Amino acid sequence: MRQLTLDDDRIFPIDPPARAVARQIFAEIRNLPLISMHGHVEAAVLANDEPFADPARLLVVPDHYVTRMLGSQGVSLESLGVGRRDGLPVETDPRAIWRAFCAGWRYFRGTPSRLWLTQQLSEIFGITVEPSLDSADKLYEDIDAKLREPAFRPRALFDRFGLEILATTDSPLSDLAAHRAIVASDWDGVVVPTFRPDALVHINHSGWKDAVARLAAVSGVETGDYDGFLAALRQRRAFFVQNGARATDHGHATADSTPLDRADADRIYRSALNGSVSVVDATAFASNMLFEMARMSADDGLVMQIHPGVLRGHDSRVDATFGPDVGFDIPLPVDFVRGLRPLLQAFGRDPHFHCVVFTIDETTYSRELAPLAGVYPAMRLGVPWWFLDAPHAMLRFREAVTETAGFYNTAGFVDDTRAFTSIPARHDVARRVDAAYLANQVTGGVLGLDEAIETAIDLTVRLPREAYPPLKS
Amino acid sequence: MRQLTLDDDRIFPIDPPARAVARQIFAEIRNLPLISMHGHVEAAVLANDEPFADPARLLVVPDHYVTRMLGSQGVSLESLGVGRRDGLPVETDPRAIWRAFCAGWRYFRGTPSRLWLTQQLSEIFGITVEPSLDSADKLYEDIDAKLREPAFRPRALFDRFGLEILATTDSPLSDLAAHRAIVASDWDGVVVPTFRPDALVHINHSGWKDAVARLAAVSGVETGDYDGFLAALRQRRAFFVQNGARATDHGHATADSTPLDRADADRIYRSALNGSVSVVDATAFASNMLFEMARMSADDGLVMQIHPGVLRGHDSRVDATFGPDVGFDIPLPVDFVRGLRPLLQAFGRDPHFHCVVFTIDETTYSRELAPLAGVYPAMRLGVPWWFLDAPHAMLRFREAVTETAGFYNTAGFVDDTRAFTSIPARHDVARRVDAAYLANQVTGGVLGLDEAIETAIDLTVRLPREAYPPLKS
Amino acid sequence: MRQLTLDDDRIFPIDPPARAVARQIFAEIRNLPLISMHGHVEAAVLANDEPFADPARLLVVPDHYVTRMLGSQGVSLESLGVGRRDGLPVETDPRAIWRAFCAGWRYFRGTPSRLWLTQQLSEIFGITVEPSLDSADKLYEDIDAKLREPAFRPRALFDRFGLEILATTDSPLSDLAAHRAIVASDWDGVVVPTFRPDALVHINHSGWKDAVARLAAVSGVETGDYDGFLAALRQRRAFFVQNGARATDHGHATADSTPLDRADADRIYRSALNGSVSVVDATAFASNMLFEMARMSADDGLVMQIHPGVLRGHDSRVDATFGPDVGFDIPLPVDFVRGLRPLLQAFGRDPHFHCVVFTIDETTYSRELAPLAGVYPAMRLGVPWWFLDAPHAMLRFREAVTETAGFYNTAGFVDDTRAFTSIPARHDVARRVDAAYLANQVTGGVLGLDEAIETAIDLTVRLPREAYPPLKS
Repeated sequence: MRQLTLDDDRIFPIDPPARAVARQIFAEIRNLPLISMHGHVEAAVLANDEPFADPARLLVVPDHYVTRMLGSQGVSLESLGVGRRDGLPVETDPRAIWRAFCAGWRYFRGTPSRLWLTQQLSEIFGITVEPSLDSADKLYEDIDAKLREPAFRPRALFDRFGLEILATTDSPLSDLAAHRAIVASDWDGVVVPTFRPDALVHINHSGWKDAVARLAAVSGVETGDYDGFLAALRQRRAFFVQNGARATDHGHATADSTPLDRADADRIYRSALNGSVSVVDATAFASNMLFEMARMSADDGLVMQIHPGVLRGHDSRVDATFGPDVGFDIPLPVDFVRGLRPLLQAFGRDPHFHCVVFTIDETTYSRELAPLAGVYPAMRLGVPWWFLDAPHAMLRFREAVTETAGFYNTAGFVDDTRAFTSIPARHDVARRVDAAYLANQVTGGVLGLDEAIETAIDLTVRLPREAYPPLKS
Repeated sequence: MRQLTLDDDRIFPIDPPARAVARQIFAEIRNLPLISMHGHVEAAVLANDEPFADPARLLVVPDHYVTRMLGSQGVSLESLGVGRRDGLPVETDPRAIWRAFCAGWRYFRGTPSRLWLTQQLSEIFGITVEPSLDSADKLYEDIDAKLREPAFRPRALFDRFGLEILATTDSPLSDLAAHRAIVASDWDGVVVPTFRPDALVHINHSGWKDAVARLAAVSGVETGDYDGFLAALRQRRAFFVQNGARATDHGHATADSTPLDRADADRIYRSALNGSVSVVDATAFASNMLFEMARMSADDGLVMQIHPGVLRGHDSRVDATFGPDVGFDIPLPVDFVRGLRPLLQAFGRDPHFHCVVFTIDETTYSRELAPLAGVYPAMRLGVPWWFLDAPHAMLRFREAVTETAGFYNTAGFVDDTRAFTSIPARHDVARRVDAAYLANQVTGGVLGLDEAIETAIDLTVRLPREAYPPLKS
Repeated sequence: MRQLTLDDDRIFPIDPPARAVARQIFAEIRNLPLISMHGHVEAAVLANDEPFADPARLLVVPDHYVTRMLGSQGVSLESLGVGRRDGLPVETDPRAIWRAFCAGWRYFRGTPSRLWLTQQLSEIFGITVEPSLDSADKLYEDIDAKLREPAFRPRALFDRFGLEILATTDSPLSDLAAHRAIVASDWDGVVVPTFRPDALVHINHSGWKDAVARLAAVSGVETGDYDGFLAALRQRRAFFVQNGARATDHGHATADSTPLDRADADRIYRSALNGSVSVVDATAFASNMLFEMARMSADDGLVMQIHPGVLRGHDSRVDATFGPDVGFDIPLPVDFVRGLRPLLQAFGRDPHFHCVVFTIDETTYSRELAPLAGVYPAMRLGVPWWFLDAPHAMLRFREAVTETAGFYNTAGFVDDTRAFTSIPARHDVARRVDAAYLANQVTGGVLGLDEAIETAIDLTVRLPREAYPPLKS
């Protein structure tokens, strides 16, 4: 059995002078609060504060970074406990799932999952041997025992992690009961909702008509025409603001934000309600809604998070069998320059509007995103996201973006995860990368150490706080 | 107040052995003459040789790298003294503008503007404290006092900078009076014009018909039909050659160079003269003109500089208010492979034709530009340009291009600036990056030190001299 | 005359701690067997085992990496001995060709050709001075003398190189006589064919009808309709399998793999046979054939190698004069996500199907290829290929791909060359780059040394053996 080690200098530059500077910078930001504004943890986890089920259901089953990698090596999703829509049986023994994970440990070499998992195992659970078939059962028992302790329940971990704020991602249809329960509780952790209207703006997706009907019900606003639809969305946004929301979140296939005139939008909306909308019209409607959401953000102050360019469910049979979010979402090229032009022309210099733009198409960093963020005051760049939430990718982001947009047109690090216990490790990796990048600038003679430390603190806490300010409701 | 420092090892590799080699290489090229073949300084500045107005109008107002960054942080262009087309008032107090700039100094961290400005302040003006609100007035006075001295007038600086040659960018309609005045003067600085016909080949741009009429007037050639138009352009090119021009310069939205047959070109040309040309026809005409300009270059020897792929005036309201060149030009993806194919098939192996191709779409470096420059003798790659004129971007260029095209299919460093006093700093940065890249090759065991030094000298002076040779007029 | 040196630490990291680790890792893989599964050496070279003709015809004339670089600097292909299709004379004196090559030695600085050539000259031929005009004749004589020795004949070199297996690239029409002769000989080198059907699936290429007629003749299967065509291809694949083939190889302009229904395919096939097929239909047919070849691979087990995205013969006059493979093939952007979707949806999770995907469009590494290979078990990523078979490009590949797909969804290093004596140098460079990458991971604290060594061995021999397993025939 190999020892599980966590090098305290990991990710830092290799040469001794830069490494020493990186240590100095990192020491100043290592223990700053975590600001988690773009996450996918369920608020109910913190509202209920129940113990996590077991190691497999905490660390393996819900993490598609993990299941996709094992799947790519021929391990079936069923054997990893990923549920099937048709109800056919999947593995339910958490020890068997955990063993499959441990047996595949070497597949994660060189990936951020390896970094996050190692840090979780080591720092949270005190594990000292590497996952392997030999160590699997012992690890399972050690972690499982911890999960039974009060110190490992969600709220205790939230406090231990130093989370200043955790944003969840929520349907406009949600009553935000879990969020309200947290506020009403005696626990003082800050958990805020995020308004994600995707299911309502993609009008040719299955279930859209039901969603619109439910929108009318929860908002108390008739949604029989386009004006009603917008009014209902406005009502929900106001409800989210009342409940602490700071941002909206938008996943589209493209970045197109061309507005429709009201008559066209209404016509398309009504035809979708009647069940007959063309792909062209549905796409135009979604683009129009990106524009409309920007207009509403300029009114109500919710920060607009935009992350286009994903082909969801690349293998449609997997989609049909297992549903979304099992690793088959694949990036697409994005045209931000022409796509966001209508939105930015209308709101990009409006002091009441703020957007944060994410991508998984790196080719846009220096060509599109940095030039746009470096000139429009309303736009900030989100950190590398999803597949790019990894050390080399983060360095490439800093190198490609900073020379054109500087540090101060970015939103600082905010993680993007549904894996609650991985949050500290994700921030740790990002802080190390920033420390490494800044140390190279200092050792390379282009930035003073005091400036570098100030910049590191800005990236860690000041910029995300500024990018996602609290709103008066 | 922080001290303003200029590390003499800046941009060099961090590890001591490579840094020592970089120092050796840099020492051999540091003081070589500056060859500035792709600039945007006005010849009148050197013809008139009047003192620069003040620090703000020298270093802030005309530099869109600077105004766009401050603008992205919410500083209005008006408050930076950028003139409005509608004549509404903008800030005219240079001290106020200078203060706004100094207050935003930290926004430039990590950008090349910071490097260029620091070097200008330090080496040209002897400034020793960093710009900040506290230091702004003192800096202003120190620089302003210098600007009153004879040693800080344009020609004195030109000589001090070691400029071997400075190329300007000029309209084919220009009488090149400033260039002729310089030649006629007793000053021996070499300032040559560059033929930039963009305003004449984009036949659907406003003002085109006026431009064509003026072309007829200055050339003495009728421009009522396409043949006349070409003949008039030929006349102007000959005039430019007589006045020392070595190159032409072409900014197009795409790289398409498909020629039209003469009848189609004539038909489109005439319809544009009559005021009714479709976007499709205008685009085809512009592509055709890229081909025609190549044909003329193969005749008269002017080196053709091509830099496609920019969406000018991304925010059309900014464009309407402030005009062009205020930072809202954003790169677009470019297809060089199919775009330049007609041009390269016709002239790419013609020993009388030479082109230098620039891009701000890095994705084309290893996929398109290096493979093309690595096989067509007529084509050389220009250095990273505009947003990519920065240390990390330059390193990416060398790393992506050299393995396929070598060093000797590039044109060496020629800056691209309208900021006269930044020219030495821009060459300094480029030389440091080349020294760093070559030092890594030497220390990495793949190039001898003597070869590296020879290559560095070639990149600095031999290749640009070869790429832009003087023509017999 | 400069000495020719071969630094034993070349390509390793520069800083001493990482370099020491790279040396340790490299020592474990340096002498492992070479697995060459994607090459273009002719089997006849090893079947006949005749001495190589002379230095020029071994190292210059057939290597388009070399001739294109010299050509880009104005050296004519004729003067390098590249044959013309029209029979007009080209240089035939190998000493003159060799001199032209030596005179251009500096053009190769910074390129992988320089690394490969230096290692061949030094390690295989014992050369100690750099090529130059002064050294050219001496070098020629030294190498030419060696080529007369038995130890420098192809089989002797094959054994000396430690080649475990060499795959060639072969037409489905081939009788594989050379391969069979090698098997029948007393030499035990393993040389296997690879099935490359490109000339048969691009139905609008000149010569296609002849090829189909010959396909019928060699297969004994009527090819008058689409079913017969498929059956004939199946027959040839079986013949290749019988003769040791392990893989197929597919070069397409795009990655599109959309299947046609049988009736459409048959209609298009017949119209092509009748000599009238549209570009649209021909393109659709080629895409369909990619799908069909995948289906056959799922049946017979041949590993499918896909490398789309090349515009062949960019300068059509060069193509007409010199034919293909003289350096004018230029990469194109590729859409793997939508292109391979039909193929991957159908076979990407089929345990009997295996594909290896190559690209020269780096922009797809992190956006498309790593996400796809990181989820579909049937897909592995081939190493950087062609223009990207170079140290910096390989590092970029590892950095862009590993964080998403890990090491174990790649196929390890398999070279791609028609230059037989360059094979060891190409593997050497790849092993050094992998050692460097892994050493940086170890020194960077994210991988243990023992794991890094295990991974290096996997990349060098285990993964290519796994990716190209022998088939039972």
